[in-house]
Amino acid sequence: MNMKNIIEEIIANKKEVGGIKQVYYVACGGSYGAFYPAKTFLETEATDIKVGIYNSNEFVHNTPKAFGKNSVLIVASHKGNTPETVKAAEIGKEAGVPVIALTWITDSPITGQADYVVDYTFGDDKDIAGEKTIVALMTAVEILNQTEGYANYDKFLDGVAKIDRIVKNACKHVEKRALAFAKDHKDDSVIYTMASGAGYGAAYMESICIFMEMQWINSSSIHTGEFFHGPFEITDAEIPFVIQVSEGSTRPLDERALKFLDKYARRVEVIDAKELGLSKIDSSVVDYFNHTLFNNVYPIYNKALADERQHPLTTRRYMWKVEY
Amino acid sequence: MNMKNIIEEIIANKKEVGGIKQVYYVACGGSYGAFYPAKTFLETEATDIKVGIYNSNEFVHNTPKAFGKNSVLIVASHKGNTPETVKAAEIGKEAGVPVIALTWITDSPITGQADYVVDYTFGDDKDIAGEKTIVALMTAVEILNQTEGYANYDKFLDGVAKIDRIVKNACKHVEKRALAFAKDHKDDSVIYTMASGAGYGAAYMESICIFMEMQWINSSSIHTGEFFHGPFEITDAEIPFVIQVSEGSTRPLDERALKFLDKYARRVEVIDAKELGLSKIDSSVVDYFNHTLFNNVYPIYNKALADERQHPLTTRRYMWKVEY
Repeated sequence: MNMKNIIEEIIANKKEVGGIKQVYYVACGGSYGAFYPAKTFLETEATDIKVGIYNSNEFVHNTPKAFGKNSVLIVASHKGNTPETVKAAEIGKEAGVPVIALTWITDSPITGQADYVVDYTFGDDKDIAGEKTIVALMTAVEILNQTEGYANYDKFLDGVAKIDRIVKNACKHVEKRALAFAKDHKDDSVIYTMASGAGYGAAYMESICIFMEMQWINSSSIHTGEFFHGPFEITDAEIPFVIQVSEGSTRPLDERALKFLDKYARRVEVIDAKELGLSKIDSSVVDYFNHTLFNNVYPIYNKALADERQHPLTTRRYMWKVEY
Repeated sequence: MNMKNIIEEIIANKKEVGGIKQVYYVACGGSYGAFYPAKTFLETEATDIKVGIYNSNEFVHNTPKAFGKNSVLIVASHKGNTPETVKAAEIGKEAGVPVIALTWITDSPITGQADYVVDYTFGDDKDIAGEKTIVALMTAVEILNQTEGYANYDKFLDGVAKIDRIVKNACKHVEKRALAFAKDHKDDSVIYTMASGAGYGAAYMESICIFMEMQWINSSSIHTGEFFHGPFEITDAEIPFVIQVSEGSTRPLDERALKFLDKYARRVEVIDAKELGLSKIDSSVVDYFNHTLFNNVYPIYNKALADERQHPLTTRRYMWKVEY
């Protein structure tokens, strides 16, 4: 069943109780980050639908009061076995809330707790249009279009059709600068990421899943609008920043932060969605594609950095190794 | 006019257009953090009311589509002159959306763009019950109670009545350990904060406004539920953490993170809401008071740290000094 049909069925089943009123995106770590654009989409585009994004364990221990007959729960777990996320899905199942589970491994614990299991593309040569973030976005787009209506629906689908080519060209485009970045940052003990808008989730993921988890480098993802209200005091010639300059409505925030960094910092890696071709997507929907572009360009940097530091991206000291 | 009356008037004025359906909290930095409990309150307790929290400049450049006749805008600016926040209020005013402005200085630019100006207590001996975070929470509590209804309204007000005494006792209680913390952390180049639930905003503020802004120490605020999905790989005997162990629904997340830190880290400062007396507030509402407790206990640590490092909390290199 495709996403359009899944949402149609959910809406049909909720007809007697008043339809969809709340949408909850629940996941951990990288999957949490992957939900960020979908959450931002409904937050920005919907009038009445209430949307929330939750770390799974927070959702489990502090389930929102509204969670019930008018809700939809969307969970994601890459291998389908994240205990807190499986538990969140179980809470949905028990409450009679339709659960859509996004996973790469469909034969996994989470499928037992889901009404709809949707797999996504993953790996080096994946079709970008089918990756987790886009599938998550499609849940939001279909829910909005089939309830309140979404005027830019066709433009959004056109964006999905274009994203694979844009991302793959962008990845080639940054290859050389990724090698230079790796050489320049191999001995750093801290690297900040910066972003705004619907693309912020990609900066969060790069910070917690790559720099902290896979490279043991201190990090934080700074919102470019928040930068001037505290974090910017950390700026000097030594501190490295990776800044996502997005395409779309919040680009002025990123440009303002970059202007400051150009003046007071010396070690700034700019990943610019405009330069990387994202403007081929219609301006009415382009905001929501920043995440996918940045999140798929980062791996070129990450591989180069891991090689240069001789610290493979698969190295862990705690994850899957000790009890926690 | 007190908050109850303000919300009554707003609801009366919206009677013909269908009442309040969306509430937007918009601010920057420390004021953004102060709105976090109010946002979490409506996210958790409301069934239909849509709530959003935005950095002011993001709101200005990407105003949600729903912003209009059924909306309320709540902004905060300590001195009432944060340009992005004044601009956000102006957008509200122009759209005919009622604007409630929280500020310490009522004779300031933001008051010209607000329908309701509400001041709050501030400074060393302030009445905690009147501080910004509590005033912001009262906007959320009154909106919910006067629309969908809020069963724990009286218990919440009882919590407000108790918080001043709890906080002031807690501040005395941590005095000695704050001095020890300062000595032990005076040479650190990175300090993480950790938290969950409605109190997360306090960890965010401590990280961006104190460690980064006022002490030029690298930092990030890690969600205790997200910790195990990336950030925890940074843990070792050298990296310092300050962890908020909250009282209420998400305490198990904080306790789980603390258990891990007790095993694999060596430099962990625990601020425990239960130990600090927050359990005197009814369990049905206690979640929302964690922020105020932690946010007012931190200054004891901050003063000690600034003294020990001979880096006054007022020192800046960019803020209010250069153009940005």
